[in-house]
Amino acid sequence: MTKTGRIFTLLLRLLASGATLAATIIMVTSHDSAEVLNLTFEAKYSNESTFKYFVIAEAVASGYSLIVLFISSKSLLRHLVMILDVVITTLLSSSVSAALAIAHVGKKGNSHAGWLPICGQVHKFCNQVTGALIAGFIAAIIYLVLLLYTLHTVYI
Amino acid sequence: MTKTGRIFTLLLRLLASGATLAATIIMVTSHDSAEVLNLTFEAKYSNESTFKYFVIAEAVASGYSLIVLFISSKSLLRHLVMILDVVITTLLSSSVSAALAIAHVGKKGNSHAGWLPICGQVHKFCNQVTGALIAGFIAAIIYLVLLLYTLHTVYI
Repeated sequence: MTKTGRIFTLLLRLLASGATLAATIIMVTSHDSAEVLNLTFEAKYSNESTFKYFVIAEAVASGYSLIVLFISSKSLLRHLVMILDVVITTLLSSSVSAALAIAHVGKKGNSHAGWLPICGQVHKFCNQVTGALIAGFIAAIIYLVLLLYTLHTVYI
Repeated sequence: MTKTGRIFTLLLRLLASGATLAATIIMVTSHDSAEVLNLTFEAKYSNESTFKYFVIAEAVASGYSLIVLFISSKSLLRHLVMILDVVITTLLSSSVSAALAIAHVGKKGNSHAGWLPICGQVHKFCNQVTGALIAGFIAAIIYLVLLLYTLHTVYI
């Protein structure tokens, strides 16, 4: 890999680390409550297992992205890093899609299944989840670009 | 790639094609209805946008897997196939995870959000969705193995 290529991948990894860290923090701190018919209704990420999966996946990807920054591109570990890049890309795309599916039901509901939207009541929570999803989506795209770029350079 | 390697990838692509085709057909034909309080309640995949995304992703992956079977491993298109393998792996993991998240709410509900489970009423529909998800999950794993194997051979 050329020097420009190394700087490019380093920059992408830094961006991915930041995006995944942001996604984790925004999702974990998302919280809101509303009163419906005198009953307090509390919304937080830990109420939904898909959001918990999202937080774990983003945190793992964030930690991995940081660790890889300190591995030299000439190291023998390069082969392992490429394989782990595939696993992390799959993990990120999987967690963002799952969380997005639940967030979509939260926003629009599903009249066929009788699931009502909740975003009207817990607006702040929904906004934070949207923010976390955007950060997670950006991280997944960065990892996809990183992986495709690595594959491209391996072939040259 | 050795002759054994070529047969191995060919076999994996054939299996992936079969699994994605099965996932598409099982999801598309999933249908059930129930009567709740004198109202007929109909369950089908097209009522939920995530399941529609699942069907499109599985159908695309099935078509791609079939087409790639006819591309020689010595062809100049090999580089493109590897890049498309990354895209298809990401697409499959994303669609299976999203559909799984919705199916989980359908089976268990979410008491915090007031979403009731529907599988008690439309048992047949839920069983078919589970079947489609298993086939989709198998296809995603096959593609992940295929991708990791290709990366491994490129490095040797």
